[in-house]
Amino acid sequence: MGDTINTGRPRARDIGLHIGHLPTGPLNAITDVAGVLVGHTTIIRGEGALQPGIGPVRTGVTVILPHAGNVFRDKVPAAIHVVNGFGKCMGQEQVEELGNIEGPIALTGTLNVGLVTDALVAWSIEQNPDIGIRTSTMNPVVGETSDAWLNDMHGRHVRQEHVFAALDAASSGPVDEGAIGAGTGMMAFGYKGGIGTASRVTQPDLGGWTVGVLVQANFGRRRELTIDGVKVGELLEAEREAVGDKGSIMIVVATDAPLLDRGLRRLARRAGIGLARTGSIAHHGSGDYVIAFSSAPAVRIPHEPAGNVLHFEHVAENGPAINELFLATVEATEEAIINALFRADTMTGRDGHVAEALPLERVQALLQSARRLRL
Amino acid sequence: MGDTINTGRPRARDIGLHIGHLPTGPLNAITDVAGVLVGHTTIIRGEGALQPGIGPVRTGVTVILPHAGNVFRDKVPAAIHVVNGFGKCMGQEQVEELGNIEGPIALTGTLNVGLVTDALVAWSIEQNPDIGIRTSTMNPVVGETSDAWLNDMHGRHVRQEHVFAALDAASSGPVDEGAIGAGTGMMAFGYKGGIGTASRVTQPDLGGWTVGVLVQANFGRRRELTIDGVKVGELLEAEREAVGDKGSIMIVVATDAPLLDRGLRRLARRAGIGLARTGSIAHHGSGDYVIAFSSAPAVRIPHEPAGNVLHFEHVAENGPAINELFLATVEATEEAIINALFRADTMTGRDGHVAEALPLERVQALLQSARRLRL
Amino acid sequence: MGDTINTGRPRARDIGLHIGHLPTGPLNAITDVAGVLVGHTTIIRGEGALQPGIGPVRTGVTVILPHAGNVFRDKVPAAIHVVNGFGKCMGQEQVEELGNIEGPIALTGTLNVGLVTDALVAWSIEQNPDIGIRTSTMNPVVGETSDAWLNDMHGRHVRQEHVFAALDAASSGPVDEGAIGAGTGMMAFGYKGGIGTASRVTQPDLGGWTVGVLVQANFGRRRELTIDGVKVGELLEAEREAVGDKGSIMIVVATDAPLLDRGLRRLARRAGIGLARTGSIAHHGSGDYVIAFSSAPAVRIPHEPAGNVLHFEHVAENGPAINELFLATVEATEEAIINALFRADTMTGRDGHVAEALPLERVQALLQSARRLRL
Amino acid sequence: MGDTINTGRPRARDIGLHIGHLPTGPLNAITDVAGVLVGHTTIIRGEGALQPGIGPVRTGVTVILPHAGNVFRDKVPAAIHVVNGFGKCMGQEQVEELGNIEGPIALTGTLNVGLVTDALVAWSIEQNPDIGIRTSTMNPVVGETSDAWLNDMHGRHVRQEHVFAALDAASSGPVDEGAIGAGTGMMAFGYKGGIGTASRVTQPDLGGWTVGVLVQANFGRRRELTIDGVKVGELLEAEREAVGDKGSIMIVVATDAPLLDRGLRRLARRAGIGLARTGSIAHHGSGDYVIAFSSAPAVRIPHEPAGNVLHFEHVAENGPAINELFLATVEATEEAIINALFRADTMTGRDGHVAEALPLERVQALLQSARRLRL
Repeated sequence: MGDTINTGRPRARDIGLHIGHLPTGPLNAITDVAGVLVGHTTIIRGEGALQPGIGPVRTGVTVILPHAGNVFRDKVPAAIHVVNGFGKCMGQEQVEELGNIEGPIALTGTLNVGLVTDALVAWSIEQNPDIGIRTSTMNPVVGETSDAWLNDMHGRHVRQEHVFAALDAASSGPVDEGAIGAGTGMMAFGYKGGIGTASRVTQPDLGGWTVGVLVQANFGRRRELTIDGVKVGELLEAEREAVGDKGSIMIVVATDAPLLDRGLRRLARRAGIGLARTGSIAHHGSGDYVIAFSSAPAVRIPHEPAGNVLHFEHVAENGPAINELFLATVEATEEAIINALFRADTMTGRDGHVAEALPLERVQALLQSARRLRL
Repeated sequence: MGDTINTGRPRARDIGLHIGHLPTGPLNAITDVAGVLVGHTTIIRGEGALQPGIGPVRTGVTVILPHAGNVFRDKVPAAIHVVNGFGKCMGQEQVEELGNIEGPIALTGTLNVGLVTDALVAWSIEQNPDIGIRTSTMNPVVGETSDAWLNDMHGRHVRQEHVFAALDAASSGPVDEGAIGAGTGMMAFGYKGGIGTASRVTQPDLGGWTVGVLVQANFGRRRELTIDGVKVGELLEAEREAVGDKGSIMIVVATDAPLLDRGLRRLARRAGIGLARTGSIAHHGSGDYVIAFSSAPAVRIPHEPAGNVLHFEHVAENGPAINELFLATVEATEEAIINALFRADTMTGRDGHVAEALPLERVQALLQSARRLRL
Repeated sequence: MGDTINTGRPRARDIGLHIGHLPTGPLNAITDVAGVLVGHTTIIRGEGALQPGIGPVRTGVTVILPHAGNVFRDKVPAAIHVVNGFGKCMGQEQVEELGNIEGPIALTGTLNVGLVTDALVAWSIEQNPDIGIRTSTMNPVVGETSDAWLNDMHGRHVRQEHVFAALDAASSGPVDEGAIGAGTGMMAFGYKGGIGTASRVTQPDLGGWTVGVLVQANFGRRRELTIDGVKVGELLEAEREAVGDKGSIMIVVATDAPLLDRGLRRLARRAGIGLARTGSIAHHGSGDYVIAFSSAPAVRIPHEPAGNVLHFEHVAENGPAINELFLATVEATEEAIINALFRADTMTGRDGHVAEALPLERVQALLQSARRLRL
Repeated sequence: MGDTINTGRPRARDIGLHIGHLPTGPLNAITDVAGVLVGHTTIIRGEGALQPGIGPVRTGVTVILPHAGNVFRDKVPAAIHVVNGFGKCMGQEQVEELGNIEGPIALTGTLNVGLVTDALVAWSIEQNPDIGIRTSTMNPVVGETSDAWLNDMHGRHVRQEHVFAALDAASSGPVDEGAIGAGTGMMAFGYKGGIGTASRVTQPDLGGWTVGVLVQANFGRRRELTIDGVKVGELLEAEREAVGDKGSIMIVVATDAPLLDRGLRRLARRAGIGLARTGSIAHHGSGDYVIAFSSAPAVRIPHEPAGNVLHFEHVAENGPAINELFLATVEATEEAIINALFRADTMTGRDGHVAEALPLERVQALLQSARRLRL
């Protein structure tokens, strides 16, 4: 497990870029949603020519826990929306059928999905030794994007100890972004991509709820990059040839608004709108998924209910509160993606492939010229 | 509007056929579900050779009201499941998005869907003059199966007054079955089909809820007909050549169990299992749809909610109560279809087409021989 | 039937706004797709206070024919994608099941859907008198958005003769835009909305196919309006309070690329991305639907196939050709929406409601200032 | 890897049970579909009290290869239908998006899914060393049902060598059934379940195609068991209390009929009808999935297409050929499930749990009494 390589690059807001209209939460991160924990394990090892199965290694895993308790015992409502299904995620069908998630969500590199799935099972068994013996099995939820360009994918280098380390390290508080955890080997818009996060808070009279988003950004061609409406990619493209134009994105949407699966599916679709605002056209080979859940205690689903009936709250949908949550999701998704690009530093991977960081000075100048910065 | 032609044919239970294990409600009908109302208008006019657009007319409309109040103001959770989508139903997408139904459900002949949709709009406007002026529009839900073999479809003979008459006549209490309302021109398994209904009650310690089903049965080839497992169709087929082997089925599932859209979708899928038990293979040209709703007051959705949050109950799904509701749905669906066949009398339609009633004596003998009757 | 009220307002390209990268077809309209015909009927009658059921009338119907032949006999592959299902469209389920459309597509005001559905049935029967007698029924496809703010919706003023007139008038060639046909009573982003169209052609070595889009634009709040990335709505909003912030959009995507239903569903989803680029967040009450079809002769589906097997072509999806079609769909959708706004003139409707046209001079200045115009 | 424990129990046809109307293929197995290969690895080790993570082991893996070539290079059209989504399958979303399968299908015990997924990745990389380096990644497809009652699930005892052994052993020819491979630890209707297979051939003038089905049967309560319409379970239940009433079923449908994803989805849904005929009500906790693919050379999808357009055949759907394929799927599924029960021998698993074989003499007598046997 290597160290993280965050090098003090700014987030979007640090340079005066204020995407959208709604205020952010205190951390402007998915962890602004009460109860949500995030942990990363980053694996960086070796350099030079690819030796398939050995290295160089540029990969990792990021976990999101819907709450700090035993999620298998107290499940959370959830929904998964697929923007473009070229992807190898694990766990969607049970989420669709039962409308809940019953463990951590893990994000990783594509070919690691099998081993990370197995690790989530192992961890859930440790927490709940009755699984598969005296009670039912559990549904691991794993998302992925491809770190093919920088990493030795054949090695499937994320093992159980890495997943456990991320789970053990998971915490509320600020979230590391950029080339870290599941974002380690990722590219976005021809630049170094990775993990980004953001949040929004709805108006107090419309619930005052928080929506937090975390993305694993690994998609887009350079010329498509759009930041707050400014066609930055078109302007940057002339300077340098793009590389790594394939990829995917995983988007995790958390909220403390009381929503069940149907309402969460509506939020998940709006994350697709935030994604579109960054210039994505959802390329054929891009696996673009959104996983949304509510951490609100009023919608928890006990593993062993006491009676035949459960009681829930749900945001009223025939009023402005739901639209405000939609807007919060759109804005937080857009900003989370931009944060992933802003925060990711240049990385050299297998075969000397260089993933250049987004040139922030040039970007800042372009945004300034378009009058999109407020300082 | 002609009279109904129910002629005292028995229901399945009347000859000792007890499908499944769960007890029925008092009426063994969808109206056993508290609040549910059913109304029919039957249109029978003319005979002889088809004059397209004029007659003979063998059609009608059946309406199911989820409760006796203003359903636009107090919507009910709902879901629609499509077994085979060769059909022209109206209203599904909004049910899917919002998980509710906000008016009566109407069933009719295929080519009548447009005019019946328009009539439901007219009726909702009468009840709610603010629709489309000071509040949103409403989503009419209309299902259909084809009465092509008996009826002059080109005439689209179901007009607004017929729909209004069915709505005005809608009541709780026993439900007329067979060649009535939307069932007037229907065929099933090569015999006269039409409307059938049945209900089941779950055990008191599993909620004691009622599931009621109403079907518009218009599907199946003769040799496929299976009654309580007995391959009645194979045994009958030798005697007489089948006619009218195309068609569809609309299934309406009502319950007083507190379920939201996702839970109702699970019930709706089990109606497909009840359908399969009667021998259906869901032919290419068969539009097989299930509309499920809950009339439980604890899950009503107000058109204008007072605050940002609504409160709901929902059946706990990790226990036996939900399986009992599944079983109730399977059994009530199977029996409702058999009741449609039992109750429908022979009818002669356009061009002298004769839809023969299911030969009950022969069927009774076959069931007796298979030891499926209890008297 | 009133006259159209197009008053010579420019399209986006006329002021030098070039959205995206791909070239347009000769007309920059859905009719650039070989075979596609478009017809409108506009109904404008009366003014002053609303008399429900009487007027004033500001409504209409627009029809899109996939090809000039008998579409019931030679069906076209099709798919429908729902961005947000608050809508009352007709025909989706059979399109989903069979992957084809077998008649014209009609767009209209929400409460007209029943009568327009009935009119499409009538028209199909005229063309194919065997429908419902010697062959199966047909599946009318009707989309809608609400003209509540300008029009007397209660009157459902679009009757069979209006639909037939639009069908009779349907032609290839330039497409009227703005407050015409189904766009007559529509609002978008707080301005007068309506019909817009655009097209794109893919590179010759990537198939050289055309994608054409036609929209019925009736959605969005003023401050959301984004034109080619420029937050025009935020800048305009201060000047004037927005009205009519509810609504929906229907998007029709046509292509001559050989695609079956699954490939067309992928295109339809990209229309949702084009929609997102204009600032939409898909409000709760917005019924946002995409209907996509291929007019390519190589994918026609005969009503009565000669044998057990049909032969099809399909765009290869593991190459750049499919991405180019995605891009064409995104760009044409975005431009079609902007064209609807550009072309629609101010209209006064029921109760003196004024739908102001987009202030083009001010918009032009804003786009110029953002350096988005090329002249 | 233990030996298989097939002990010469008969298949359904061996005792004169002829389910349905269509003829079987020569082997009455999924391998009647040209090109399809099946391989099993069975793991039986230890006995006595459960030591979580150690044993006793009663598990395994079954693989189905769509054809004998490199499936990553020559993909097959495919669709997945979910009857009830309480399951942890891998790979569905990409199958849905792209309509194809690009490797073997593996079936196993629930908690093994992660490691089996990883093994499929490893095997595909061995065959295609360019995966993840010079070309895209691959989508492993893994289904599962729970062997909780007999097996030490915590141990996840299916490892890469077991998956590779099953793949290496895969062959056309007769398919072992019962407590073998992925069926080793399975229960169905309170009896020993496992692997079953069957096939049907459509009439020569309707294509003469073959549909083959293989099931991993692990579902149902005893009293639900229905064999060819006879309520065998009700009659057997009195004798002995049922155990193991939870579970799931995986159904794999193969055909040489030229069908793309949409047509295959229609077939997959009919497998759900075959399932219903055996008495299933799709319990809450039952993960019931159908994976359908076509092995027809006319519908292969090359990984690297030579041009922008591919050519396909597809069964014409507006004729009797498609209904015949539906019927073939229903019948083969029903018989495959019954074969699984017939062929599975009694097994003792963890904690001395005994899974009794279906008592064939008693069943034969019941079927004989209901006149369902032809000898």
